[in-house]
Amino acid sequence: MVDHTTQLTQVLPFWERLAASQRSLLTDNTMEIRYFKGMIVSSTENECIGVLTIIEGGLRVLMRSPDGREITLYRLKPGDVCILSASCLLHNITFDVTIEAEEDTLSLRTGIAAWQHLQNESLYVENFSLRLAVSRFSDVMWAMEQLLFSRLDRRIAAFLFDESTKTGSDCVNLTHERIASYVGSAREAVSRMLKQFEAEGFVALQRGGVAIINRESLRKLLQ
Amino acid sequence: MVDHTTQLTQVLPFWERLAASQRSLLTDNTMEIRYFKGMIVSSTENECIGVLTIIEGGLRVLMRSPDGREITLYRLKPGDVCILSASCLLHNITFDVTIEAEEDTLSLRTGIAAWQHLQNESLYVENFSLRLAVSRFSDVMWAMEQLLFSRLDRRIAAFLFDESTKTGSDCVNLTHERIASYVGSAREAVSRMLKQFEAEGFVALQRGGVAIINRESLRKLLQ
Repeated sequence: MVDHTTQLTQVLPFWERLAASQRSLLTDNTMEIRYFKGMIVSSTENECIGVLTIIEGGLRVLMRSPDGREITLYRLKPGDVCILSASCLLHNITFDVTIEAEEDTLSLRTGIAAWQHLQNESLYVENFSLRLAVSRFSDVMWAMEQLLFSRLDRRIAAFLFDESTKTGSDCVNLTHERIASYVGSAREAVSRMLKQFEAEGFVALQRGGVAIINRESLRKLLQ
Repeated sequence: MVDHTTQLTQVLPFWERLAASQRSLLTDNTMEIRYFKGMIVSSTENECIGVLTIIEGGLRVLMRSPDGREITLYRLKPGDVCILSASCLLHNITFDVTIEAEEDTLSLRTGIAAWQHLQNESLYVENFSLRLAVSRFSDVMWAMEQLLFSRLDRRIAAFLFDESTKTGSDCVNLTHERIASYVGSAREAVSRMLKQFEAEGFVALQRGGVAIINRESLRKLLQ
């Protein structure tokens, strides 16, 4: 069995406060788990799978409407701890989110029962879980502000930048439908806006993707 | 000076855990404060006024866009404790909300310095603050789901029901502009929808308000 102690001590500030038996409980109930790109880590049907510490890759936390629209709430990167995959540990969390592997992801999963046990025994562990949830609250409010109050041209420009930075390429290989899902709008509206971007020389529309032609003009939209 | 000890013990579960000196610090730094209907209790400019325990009346917590649109996030009623009016106490809260008195409201305000002192001394107090914030997180997610994924006809119908239940009258005395603010839409879209409701015999449009004519038909929209 691989020992994950070093990784856990780095991300869990309450480690210092735990007794030896509590540390063993934590490490004994933590295992490596891999998610392939595109896999659903957690959703309404399967929402309380454990606390995930991201080692490599990344997760996207999103809301999905009955008709399939998606709203990205926030992203988790290596070193982040995912608490909404263990939302049953937080008495007051009663909403559903979907967590998706955005890349091939390696994580450490700590089981619900062990974490619950530690939370019951230590206010420091509960404090950590609550703090994490509150900090995601801030992320979600930011996403909501962007979505509700930011103009569509700005949202699309920001998304294209974000994607191209992440992939290190000027080509964003996603359909208009997919981009619409990411920016929380309808495909028709996104297609119309992208055509306008093309007409203004910001991008070139290609089969199954968008190529950024003039980054500077696109960046001006974000100001 | 009025003694608020009884009221505080009822709403603050950590009271039992406080030492005598901590209890005194809490009561000595808690005062009655009244807000008249429509008053802004807290906003971006004045966001950290203290922890508010609602005794009578009610508060509405909302987001306001630069162009004046409003999104209702949740409401607080007697017995509720408002923690976002003390968001500086929560390290990870970095967003701005506006808190408005929806009715004439009597509350107990506990000062920031005293609360911070108690939080530093007791994890029970800090975890109480965090739990409150996490439970508001749930409320906000619910509001967001309604807003993003619920159809406008349903949102307006739900709002009219809500208002008429609250006031005990079939007449909702609010302008279309105001209703649009509440349901997070544009005035034009709301006016169009209300005209359609009128055409279908659900409501009658009056100067400065909307009268509910056929509650049953309106209710069907909510299913």
